[in-house]
Amino acid sequence: MKKKSIEQKFFVSFDYTVYFSENIFDKKNPLLGEVLSSYKATKVFFVVDQGVVNLHPDLFSKIKDYAAAHPENFRLCADPLVVPGGEEVKNQLRFVEQILEASNNHGIDRHSFIVAIGGGAVLDMAGFATAIAHRGIRHIRIPTTVLAQNDSGIGVKNSINAFGKKNFLGTFTPPYAVINDSSFLLTLDERDWRSGISEAVKVALIKDASFFEWIEANSTALTTRKMIPMKELIYRCAELHLEHIGGGDPFESGSSRPLDFGHWAAHKLEQLTNYKLRHGEAVAIGILLDSTYSNLKGLLSSEALNRIVNLIKSLGFNIYSPELSEENLLLGLEEFREHLGGQLTIMLLNGIGSGIEVHEMDPTLISDAAGKLKKFQQEVSPI
Amino acid sequence: MKKKSIEQKFFVSFDYTVYFSENIFDKKNPLLGEVLSSYKATKVFFVVDQGVVNLHPDLFSKIKDYAAAHPENFRLCADPLVVPGGEEVKNQLRFVEQILEASNNHGIDRHSFIVAIGGGAVLDMAGFATAIAHRGIRHIRIPTTVLAQNDSGIGVKNSINAFGKKNFLGTFTPPYAVINDSSFLLTLDERDWRSGISEAVKVALIKDASFFEWIEANSTALTTRKMIPMKELIYRCAELHLEHIGGGDPFESGSSRPLDFGHWAAHKLEQLTNYKLRHGEAVAIGILLDSTYSNLKGLLSSEALNRIVNLIKSLGFNIYSPELSEENLLLGLEEFREHLGGQLTIMLLNGIGSGIEVHEMDPTLISDAAGKLKKFQQEVSPI
Repeated sequence: MKKKSIEQKFFVSFDYTVYFSENIFDKKNPLLGEVLSSYKATKVFFVVDQGVVNLHPDLFSKIKDYAAAHPENFRLCADPLVVPGGEEVKNQLRFVEQILEASNNHGIDRHSFIVAIGGGAVLDMAGFATAIAHRGIRHIRIPTTVLAQNDSGIGVKNSINAFGKKNFLGTFTPPYAVINDSSFLLTLDERDWRSGISEAVKVALIKDASFFEWIEANSTALTTRKMIPMKELIYRCAELHLEHIGGGDPFESGSSRPLDFGHWAAHKLEQLTNYKLRHGEAVAIGILLDSTYSNLKGLLSSEALNRIVNLIKSLGFNIYSPELSEENLLLGLEEFREHLGGQLTIMLLNGIGSGIEVHEMDPTLISDAAGKLKKFQQEVSPI
Repeated sequence: MKKKSIEQKFFVSFDYTVYFSENIFDKKNPLLGEVLSSYKATKVFFVVDQGVVNLHPDLFSKIKDYAAAHPENFRLCADPLVVPGGEEVKNQLRFVEQILEASNNHGIDRHSFIVAIGGGAVLDMAGFATAIAHRGIRHIRIPTTVLAQNDSGIGVKNSINAFGKKNFLGTFTPPYAVINDSSFLLTLDERDWRSGISEAVKVALIKDASFFEWIEANSTALTTRKMIPMKELIYRCAELHLEHIGGGDPFESGSSRPLDFGHWAAHKLEQLTNYKLRHGEAVAIGILLDSTYSNLKGLLSSEALNRIVNLIKSLGFNIYSPELSEENLLLGLEEFREHLGGQLTIMLLNGIGSGIEVHEMDPTLISDAAGKLKKFQQEVSPI
């Protein structure tokens, strides 16, 4: 025994494709079958958001017909499992347990696939169950909302809530594929259509001034539900998110999390409103809070702040919530620090398309920024 | 919208050190303090195996004294959590829940450390809880048994049992460090001292003939509890395991799992005996079963098989269990296939130090091999 230690070092390679298609359960669309076939997926199990089933009552029969039309590519091993949509599905362990039970009952192994169809909350929950069963069953996500297609559904994280804290439990587990089907967007209600746009504004603000200008130029088309600009917005937003994840610290070993710009306050607002405020709606407020703070701190010009206020308002977001008290906000800031771990790291703006990280925030300025949001809300938008 | 997909591809680098030391809670041993300090670990929480506490009643006071002596390196954030040792701790969710609750109550974040001290089962369970809280709290393992120090505690896997199936839930999550403290070996009972040796025999058989010869030459010293050869055995066994994990497919995306030589039957035997048979004891039987099968299949010479039988017997292992019926074994084989997923892949031997993978096993020969084990057990060892 001369040596006193052994150094273990290795790399793990991850890759997956985010596809953009439409009517993916149309028998003539080969995409899903080809993706499953490329992984020799013999056994496939679907987990579906109740909200999607309500809007697409023929979804199950379409999935069955699709499987029947592609028997060489994959085989359904059981009827789909339907789970509630929205944050509720993340607040209880039992939906995770239902997926684990199905995995056990149907012999779904590490080479089988669990395909989840739904909004971000369902994908987060199903992704978590899938990540821990057999130390990881293969997983495909089919996001159905703007938010899930351009942000939450395309990354490497999954989660459920616990102890009243958002995303307390989860893992970093890349999916095997993501398939964005634009036909699901057609049936979204107004709030779900709009709310995902805030994540595009967010990533534009920290990374891409020309994308911000593009959103400004297309804000009317976007709010009047034009599909072509929405598909473009989703593609570019997804691309910016994927570039950031792949180029940086995918499993977030550090404390920096730039894509969470505006999110520390958003998470707290969601929790305080019992998730009546949707994630994207809360993010719109969080973006404005941190943009206003950046302005008060002398980092961001008033002209830039005005553009941000005007864009968020023209997209139809509420920009103030009565829960924005100093006490709530400071609590939210501490919870965010604890969830990230280590040193507090908050992304602010020093220009449109340009983020800057800080490690402390001034409580008085946070409170002042919240007061400004109330004022912005009352002002008639100049647009 | 011209492009139809975005390819996401990245590498994640993992590294951790496995240290070999003794009396690590002696105030004069700087190792643990230095490791924690290197990660700027301000907050540390311990999870400890009840079995270890029973054998080391002064452990908590030593940990506290150690922390008090190294205040610049880390800070205990709460009293240690004690959990039962042995497989029982993996059979219920509540011990995982206790760690999650502690993480919540004490504000243990992604940059804090949870340090687990114990046998393989406690490390598996604590590693799982740690991996899913906040999507991964930093984790250090201090394995206290031969088995945990040379195999289960040094790798990248964690798990608990569910639905009566071993390791049904878990993740691949490398620790931040492993510290093997040989002083814990002094208080092991006979069975725990012996049972970890079977993993060394296993890895020698599939990878390193000279290590097998070394174990043969040292079998008496090992069974009479000589510490120097045991430390050598643990070091070399750990080294072979780490080389394999780092050099191959660390997160097991394929179906091949060579280090599970002898394990398919072992897992079933553990379950069928309600874990009265310890893992290493079951592995000893599993090794002999698959070695005998390899011989019956014409892959392994009878001379080599005799050496394996004699070594396992001279190490004091029972080599037969009444649960080795054909029905049980075939069920175990199917469960193993399901847990690995995909195509059945079983490691056999075509020589000492040389493994060979097969994708099917002959039920009749499995049954014959089990019959031979009964015979070997009855024969007086020729050594």
